[in-house]
Amino acid sequence: MASARTLQELFLSTLQDIYHGEKQILKALPKMAKNATTPELKQAFQHHLQQTEGQVERLQRVFELMDKSARGRTCEAIEGLVEEGKEVMSEAESGEVMDAGLIAAAQAVEHYEIARYGTLVAWAEELGMKDAAQLLQQTLQEEKQTDELLNKIAMERVNRQAA
Amino acid sequence: MASARTLQELFLSTLQDIYHGEKQILKALPKMAKNATTPELKQAFQHHLQQTEGQVERLQRVFELMDKSARGRTCEAIEGLVEEGKEVMSEAESGEVMDAGLIAAAQAVEHYEIARYGTLVAWAEELGMKDAAQLLQQTLQEEKQTDELLNKIAMERVNRQAA
Repeated sequence: MASARTLQELFLSTLQDIYHGEKQILKALPKMAKNATTPELKQAFQHHLQQTEGQVERLQRVFELMDKSARGRTCEAIEGLVEEGKEVMSEAESGEVMDAGLIAAAQAVEHYEIARYGTLVAWAEELGMKDAAQLLQQTLQEEKQTDELLNKIAMERVNRQAA
Repeated sequence: MASARTLQELFLSTLQDIYHGEKQILKALPKMAKNATTPELKQAFQHHLQQTEGQVERLQRVFELMDKSARGRTCEAIEGLVEEGKEVMSEAESGEVMDAGLIAAAQAVEHYEIARYGTLVAWAEELGMKDAAQLLQQTLQEEKQTDELLNKIAMERVNRQAA
């Protein structure tokens, strides 16, 4: 996080963090979709890729609302999470383990985003930025839905294994 | 994450990640409690410090159940999140901004843990490790409650600001 003394500075640096994060995720999702072995998971990653493109556009609109240029800031947390997904893909010995690892990595990313967007919505409201709050809220809902879908796919996988 | 080809290896390396993470959090929480300005937030961090000590013990029991020695593995994601909390503490210009930043950092950590423990519970069940699943489920509930408490404190803070 950048030097942030005021709430507006905290908001901006968190926005830059997540903007960088979404761009990393845009790069990772096609590889995750390609490596996923069950059709449901492959489809979930492809769908979330499209969603993420829309989320990046929303972030660009929030930067515009603040009269700031859209700019990312390297965020170690998200880099670490994306890196983890890559390791899973290079090491899994079976499709089952591949999918388990990909779901785990994706859910860690989703939860990171849920925390970040939740914070950004609250701060946007506090700062009186209603339009920004609304845009960020839309993305927050999408991230929560994606996490729930991944939960469902994970459970189906476990149930298949037990059967 | 370590080299992980099987689900059991994935489980173990994720366990080592979160064990390292909890130890980092044990070190960070006393400083966060000291810097928090509202009594509710200070108390929440102190309470979560006690909880985290119990969570570390549960992880040690899961390692024992697997006949493995309790060992952490450096996890860049959690290091990045904890680092962020430190930056907030060194830069906030007011108590309000300090608390806002501390809540945001803590919620990012909680969500990371919710994702990790959720995954570990599912994998423990899949691997037939019922006792481990139960221990990890207890911690998962505590992390979710902590996140909800932080949400409540954040909302009260925003409402106070608006008043």
